Amino acid sequence: MPRTELSHATMFGTAHALPPHTFIMFGATGDLARRKLFPALFALYQNGQLPAQFAVMGTARTPYTLPAFRADVRAALESFARCPVDADAWADFAEHLFYCPVDVRSPEDFSRLREAVTDIERRFDLPEQRVFYLAMAPELFADVVIQLQGCGLTAARGWRRLIIEKPFGRDLASAERLNDQLQQVFEEAEIYRIDHYLGKEMVQNIEVLRFANSIFEPVWDNRSIQNVQITSSETVGVEERAGYYDQAGALRDMVQNHMLQMVMMVAMEPPSRLKTEAIRDEKVKVLRSLRRLSGAEVASHVVRGQYASGQIAGQAVPGYCSEPGVPADSRTETFVAARLWIDNFRWAGVPFYIRTGKRMAAKVTEIVIQFKELPRMYFNQTGQLLPNRLVIHVHPEEGISIQVNAKRPGTDGAVVPVAMEFGQAPDNSPEAYERLLYDGIRGDSTFFTRWDEVSLAWKFVDPIAESFRMNRVPLALYPAGSWGPAASDQLLAADDARWWPLTGQAPAIPEQVHQAGHPLD
Amino acid sequence: MPRTELSHATMFGTAHALPPHTFIMFGATGDLARRKLFPALFALYQNGQLPAQFAVMGTARTPYTLPAFRADVRAALESFARCPVDADAWADFAEHLFYCPVDVRSPEDFSRLREAVTDIERRFDLPEQRVFYLAMAPELFADVVIQLQGCGLTAARGWRRLIIEKPFGRDLASAERLNDQLQQVFEEAEIYRIDHYLGKEMVQNIEVLRFANSIFEPVWDNRSIQNVQITSSETVGVEERAGYYDQAGALRDMVQNHMLQMVMMVAMEPPSRLKTEAIRDEKVKVLRSLRRLSGAEVASHVVRGQYASGQIAGQAVPGYCSEPGVPADSRTETFVAARLWIDNFRWAGVPFYIRTGKRMAAKVTEIVIQFKELPRMYFNQTGQLLPNRLVIHVHPEEGISIQVNAKRPGTDGAVVPVAMEFGQAPDNSPEAYERLLYDGIRGDSTFFTRWDEVSLAWKFVDPIAESFRMNRVPLALYPAGSWGPAASDQLLAADDARWWPLTGQAPAIPEQVHQAGHPLD
Repeated sequence: MPRTELSHATMFGTAHALPPHTFIMFGATGDLARRKLFPALFALYQNGQLPAQFAVMGTARTPYTLPAFRADVRAALESFARCPVDADAWADFAEHLFYCPVDVRSPEDFSRLREAVTDIERRFDLPEQRVFYLAMAPELFADVVIQLQGCGLTAARGWRRLIIEKPFGRDLASAERLNDQLQQVFEEAEIYRIDHYLGKEMVQNIEVLRFANSIFEPVWDNRSIQNVQITSSETVGVEERAGYYDQAGALRDMVQNHMLQMVMMVAMEPPSRLKTEAIRDEKVKVLRSLRRLSGAEVASHVVRGQYASGQIAGQAVPGYCSEPGVPADSRTETFVAARLWIDNFRWAGVPFYIRTGKRMAAKVTEIVIQFKELPRMYFNQTGQLLPNRLVIHVHPEEGISIQVNAKRPGTDGAVVPVAMEFGQAPDNSPEAYERLLYDGIRGDSTFFTRWDEVSLAWKFVDPIAESFRMNRVPLALYPAGSWGPAASDQLLAADDARWWPLTGQAPAIPEQVHQAGHPLD
Repeated sequence: MPRTELSHATMFGTAHALPPHTFIMFGATGDLARRKLFPALFALYQNGQLPAQFAVMGTARTPYTLPAFRADVRAALESFARCPVDADAWADFAEHLFYCPVDVRSPEDFSRLREAVTDIERRFDLPEQRVFYLAMAPELFADVVIQLQGCGLTAARGWRRLIIEKPFGRDLASAERLNDQLQQVFEEAEIYRIDHYLGKEMVQNIEVLRFANSIFEPVWDNRSIQNVQITSSETVGVEERAGYYDQAGALRDMVQNHMLQMVMMVAMEPPSRLKTEAIRDEKVKVLRSLRRLSGAEVASHVVRGQYASGQIAGQAVPGYCSEPGVPADSRTETFVAARLWIDNFRWAGVPFYIRTGKRMAAKVTEIVIQFKELPRMYFNQTGQLLPNRLVIHVHPEEGISIQVNAKRPGTDGAVVPVAMEFGQAPDNSPEAYERLLYDGIRGDSTFFTRWDEVSLAWKFVDPIAESFRMNRVPLALYPAGSWGPAASDQLLAADDARWWPLTGQAPAIPEQVHQAGHPLD
C-alpha cells in the first residue's frame, strides 16, 4: 500500500504547522508516554506546530473515563513538561485528547478502536492521516501491527505511519523476524524506528557543523584526526528495568543503536544531497566499512564491565548483582568500551573509541575528536603541548568547544590550552522527542533508523554478544561511581591514547603547560 | 665589534630576571618616554623581571635636577602606569633612575654622559651592558649614534644594543642612508628597530596560533582561504603631529611598517626552527613574494583617502586640511586601503586586503581570515550562509573568534551563525612596550624589524608613494567618523568580497540566516 510523501514537500524544513492527523498512541498510560510523549506533543502544541486539526487517541489496557485520562495526562504534564503548563493552552489541548482501552490480543477491542478513531475523524473532519505510536513492550509490536491491519485502521485513504521504540530485536535473527512481520503491513518508508539519540540537539548538529562550514571538512579525516572518542555514561543503575536489562545488557541497550548512530554521524561521507535517503545511504556505508570483530579480536578490542558496589554522589549503592530482580550470578555487562575501525579511505588508521555504562561517575554524553599530536618542534619540543580537540557536548551541556593552544598574555612566552566554545542553555532546547515526533508526523525519517542500519548494526554486534556469552571476554568489575574498569583505560593506552576528561571531570593531567619562547640565536 | 649573544641562551623564553644593564634613554622627558617607556620599565620592575642590578640614565636637552627628574617620572607613572603605583616599589625603582642633560650636537655633553654612565656602573658594580634607546626625532638618530661612538660609550666591554623608534627613513634611499650610518657603529644584530605592533599580545599570538595547533595549518592556504582582511583604524585625527604626518601620510606611517608586519605574520611559512633569524627569514620571504605594484596597477589596487569634516562620537570635527599645521591644499593621505598579492604556492589567488586610516568610525585592529564560500548545496542552496571567518582581535579586544554555522535549537532546521571565541581582558595584558623592552634588554630581536624587512617594505611602498605624489591615484575624501571612502568598499566588491564588520560594528547584513532542513524525499 504505497503512500506518497511528496504532497508534503512544500512544508520541508520549516516550523510550519504539521499536517492534520490522528495520533494513535499505544502505551498511553505508561512511563514513556507520561515522561516524554505527552510533554513533547504539548510543547509542539504550545509552539503552534500542531495543526488546528489533530487528535490524540490514547490506548492502553486499563479502562479510563475520558475525564480521568485527560486528568492523568495533565498530571503528567505538571511533572514533566519543559515549560509551565498554561491553563488556557491545556484546556484547548485537552479537547484533542481521547482514550480507548485496548487489550492488544482482542480483535474486538481493535474494532472498537477503529470505530473510535473513525468517529473522531468524522466529527473533526480529519483526513485519514494516522500516526501509530507503539510505546510498549517490543514483544507486542508484531501483534499490534497485525491487529491494526485486521481491524482496518491501516487501510487509511490518506497516509499512515508507524513509530516504534527500541529495541528492534535482540540479535539479527529476531530483528529480521520482527521486520518481516511489520513489513507485511507497513512499507519501509512508513516505519519510523526511534533512536532518541538522533533527536538530540547536538547529534543533529553534527551534520550542520560538518556540512554548513568550510573549515572543518578539510581536517575531518585521517590526515588530521588521531582518534575519535564517544562516551555516553549514566549514574543510574538498572533501576526498575532489571527484567529487560539483564537480558539485554549495555551492548544491545546502548551500543547497537545509540553509540553506533553517533559513530555514523561523525564518520559519514558528505551525501550527494541533503535528503533523507541520501543521508541514510551514507550512514549505512559507515556500517558497511565498520570492521567486524570476531573470535580473538573481540577480546582485544572490546571491554566488558559490570558495576560493583560503590558510591554515587556520596551515597553507597549496591553492585549490579545485588540489584532487585538481577540474578546474583548475572554476567550481564553494564559497561562496554570498544575500539572500532572504519576501513575506508577517510578513516583508515583512526580508532573510534566508544564507551557507555551505568553507575558511572557522571551522566554525560560527549564526542571528542582528537587531532594529531603536534610535531616535536616549535613550542612542543618536550611533547607537553596537548593536541587540539573538537568536543561535541551532547548532554547535559549542549554546545561545541575547540581546545587550542595560545600564548599566555605576558612576556614569558608560555603557551597554554584555552577553549573556544559556543553553547546553549539546554533548558531552551526542545527535547529529543519533540523533534522526533515533529519529524515523524511530518514524514521526515532522516533521524529515524532504516532497516539496513538496524540489520548491519546487529551484524556487527552479534559476534561480540556471542563472545560475551561464551565468556571469551573477561567481565571486569568496576566500582559504582567510577569511569569504568581499568581495562577501558588500558584499551586506549595500548594505542598511546587516553580518554580525555569530559566536561566537569577533573583533568587527569595539568592543564597549564609552560613553554619557552624564542631560543636566542 | 661583534658581541656574542649566546651567553644568555640559558634564559631563553622565561620570565627570569633580565641581565644587569644600564638603560640609556634619549628623549627621556618626551611623550613616548612618559606614556610608554617608563610605565613599561616600571611594570617589568614590579613583575620582578628587571634584575637587581640595573640603572636607567635619562637624557634630554632640558636641564633637570635628579629629584626633579624622578618626580617627573613619578608623575608620568601616576598618569600612565598600567597598575596602581605602589609607594614602596616606586621608592626602590626611583633609586635606579638617573639623568644627564645632553644636547645631541655637543661632544662635551656626550663626554659628560659617558662619565655619568661609567660612574654609575662603577658605583653599582654594573657590567658594561648598555641599552641605548632613541625615543627622539629620527633625523637625530645618526648624529646620536656617531656621538655615542665618539664619546666611547659604545666601546663597552660587555654588550650594547641600540633600540630605535620608527620611522626608519621615508623611502628606500633615506632608509639606506640611515642604515649605513648606524652600521658604522652598531652591527645589524645589535640594532633593534621597534615596530610596536609586533609587541602586541595578539600579533605575537599569531605564530602560536599557527604553530602550536594542528587544526589550523591544514586550512591555512589558498585551498581553504578566500581572502585575508587586516584593518587598523583610529578615531583620532592628526593631533599635534601635523608637521611629521603631513610629510609622511598613512602609507609611510602605517602601511610600510605595521600593516606589512601583520601581513607577514599571517602569511609566513613555518620556519625551520622557532628561532629569531629563522622566523625573520620567513617573514622576509613574504615580502619577496609580495607583488610589487607599479604604474596603472597602483590605481586599481590601492585606495588613497583623506578625511573631510564629520562627526566622531557625536562631536563635529574638522577635515584634515583644516587641522592646525596642515596646509589647506594638502593632498596627504590619511587613509589607505589596498589589495595585496603574495605570489607563492600557499597564497596564489588569495587577496590580502589592508586598510588603515585616521578619523574612522572606531579604533580597532583586527585580522579577519575569510574561508571559502560553501558550495551551493546542503544548507546553502540559496547562497545565504556566511563563510567561516577566523578573527584575530588585536585591539581593543584581545582574543580569537571563529564564526561558524550551527543548527538553531529547535525543530525548524534553521542554520545560524554563532561565534566560538576566547578572549582576555586587555587590562591584564602587558603593554606592547613591556614585551618589546623585555625582549630588547634580553637580546631577543624576533619581534623587531630586520634591515632587509625594512628595505623590502620600502621597495614595495616607494612606487605607491610615487603614484600618490604624481596624483595617479585619486584622493578620495571620506567623512570623519566613517569607514573610509566608498572606493575602499568598491575595491573588495570588484572581487565579490566585502569588508566584514569588525567587533562592535553593526553587521551590514542580517546575522540570522534561516535555512530549510531536510527536503522530504
